[in-house]
Amino acid sequence: MKNKRLSLGIDIGGTSIKMALVDEEGGIGPKAKVMVEQGDSAEKTLLEVIERAKMVLDQADGEVVAIGLGCPGAINPKTGICDYSNNLGWKDVHVVSIFSKALGLPAFVDNDANAALLGEVYFGNGKDYRDIVFLTLGTGVGSGLYLNGKIYAGREGKGAELGHTVIEMGGRKCTCGREGCLEAYASATGLKNLIKEAMHEHPESLMWKECPEPENPQGHVPFKCEKLGDSAAKEVVSKYIHYLSVGCANFSNIFRPEAIIIGGGVSNQGKPFADRIKEETAKELAGYGPSSCPLPDFLVSTLGADAGIYGAAALGFEGIK
Amino acid sequence: MKNKRLSLGIDIGGTSIKMALVDEEGGIGPKAKVMVEQGDSAEKTLLEVIERAKMVLDQADGEVVAIGLGCPGAINPKTGICDYSNNLGWKDVHVVSIFSKALGLPAFVDNDANAALLGEVYFGNGKDYRDIVFLTLGTGVGSGLYLNGKIYAGREGKGAELGHTVIEMGGRKCTCGREGCLEAYASATGLKNLIKEAMHEHPESLMWKECPEPENPQGHVPFKCEKLGDSAAKEVVSKYIHYLSVGCANFSNIFRPEAIIIGGGVSNQGKPFADRIKEETAKELAGYGPSSCPLPDFLVSTLGADAGIYGAAALGFEGIK
Repeated sequence: MKNKRLSLGIDIGGTSIKMALVDEEGGIGPKAKVMVEQGDSAEKTLLEVIERAKMVLDQADGEVVAIGLGCPGAINPKTGICDYSNNLGWKDVHVVSIFSKALGLPAFVDNDANAALLGEVYFGNGKDYRDIVFLTLGTGVGSGLYLNGKIYAGREGKGAELGHTVIEMGGRKCTCGREGCLEAYASATGLKNLIKEAMHEHPESLMWKECPEPENPQGHVPFKCEKLGDSAAKEVVSKYIHYLSVGCANFSNIFRPEAIIIGGGVSNQGKPFADRIKEETAKELAGYGPSSCPLPDFLVSTLGADAGIYGAAALGFEGIK
Repeated sequence: MKNKRLSLGIDIGGTSIKMALVDEEGGIGPKAKVMVEQGDSAEKTLLEVIERAKMVLDQADGEVVAIGLGCPGAINPKTGICDYSNNLGWKDVHVVSIFSKALGLPAFVDNDANAALLGEVYFGNGKDYRDIVFLTLGTGVGSGLYLNGKIYAGREGKGAELGHTVIEMGGRKCTCGREGCLEAYASATGLKNLIKEAMHEHPESLMWKECPEPENPQGHVPFKCEKLGDSAAKEVVSKYIHYLSVGCANFSNIFRPEAIIIGGGVSNQGKPFADRIKEETAKELAGYGPSSCPLPDFLVSTLGADAGIYGAAALGFEGIK
């Protein structure tokens, strides 16, 4: 199968950089990984990544057509520069020119959220849609917009910050400095805050048994305890889904997307979780009447642990399109 | 000047339908108007409009290349159908095919908010921008999105409902059924509610002198009284601008637009009003740091009473582009 077209997906993270060749059908080759130490310079890290990438490229069982790089932080996909990344300690790193020169292939960079969204479009649950709102529920609320069949990133690639929209004026302090952002409620961190508060108020809750570290509870705990009949856990889940649905209803009214795809740790709760968000969003939008407001499909990401590599590889294919 | 290209702009409203020929430089010909009576059938109204349009077209001093129709309600620009319009009592009216057949010209329809936005792009303050968030502050908050140099309307043309995004969970009841929508605070109606509440709390306020009907105050009153040193009026204006800015900060984070253009009655407050919204939005976004968050330009609409005709004519030019 030497005629397969391949894209080298490089998933840049704060602790490690993972890569693999991916074909257009989503077949993935052997993975390679470079560890990143706190304090490593961008030069040192990238040299190592390039050496490893050469080894991966040597093993290609097809025609490598592009390199895609998913990178955390403020990335300008047009200039190909990582303006800065707190996680990596990078500032003004010319990622695209470094990789394209070293490896002799067209290279493309975007932030990890846009990469993940494009991964869904090429290889995941986003295949059938041209208008998608993508939310990743992790430490923060990452997000991406796919509008009219293209990533919409806003000026300097700095838009699509859906997590930093206020849904509760004067509410919880957000990492961005505003008060009441969706991120402060709908991120995994927001969920953990709800859990801690509920545990504090309900010493009888089963959640105490499931949380070895009550100060750092895991997001899946209330979902598990709810199934066991714990009422405090049930309330946590209801509240959390309500916050998320207020955001999803806002984005539905703005974009009328065909689909809202949820990724990140919390999305491991799967289809039942997506179904509940859809149901709650429908209630939130009921006033418009069903004919006036087509509800989006609600889906969870299914790309799993390799989502970052898939997303980066998708950036490559998209770039040469 | 027979070689001028002209578009017939037809501005369909609930009480009257206005039209004129507009050239590409924004020159506007003689205006014609058809009154709409409550209860008139769509057929009767449109027959009259078509007769009048023929008369206007006969007077054209250039080449008429298209007809544009701005229409209130749920419009699908792709099918050319007015799905329904409460104001007009229309349902499933095939506006585009009716006009293009009767007048032998390509015709295009969109809702009045998108038309107004396109009017700004072709003839107003939006000329220099490719990414614009447009808000009209009237009875409700109308809105339009111009992204990457094109109207973004969402599925079935029903998106861009920026007024119906919740900024205050559990807040004021909105006409759409949700609680705490931007529209409930930032519309002219929202402003009037703030005025009434402030007047009730402050019998000493100058606003009492300026409001002949205290139950139906006019939006310009607090702006006027603030200048005269009235503290209650000042608080009304500050609150109103704060609500508006929370919305503008949300839309900035989502779209990173180049410009936010404000239309509708309240925008008569002019450039100082736009400047204050910008200042307050900048405070709201300060946490990101200036380098990470390019602020949009803030402008008011300047097309005045003919904005509807300009917008409709722009739909025509855009349609044949």
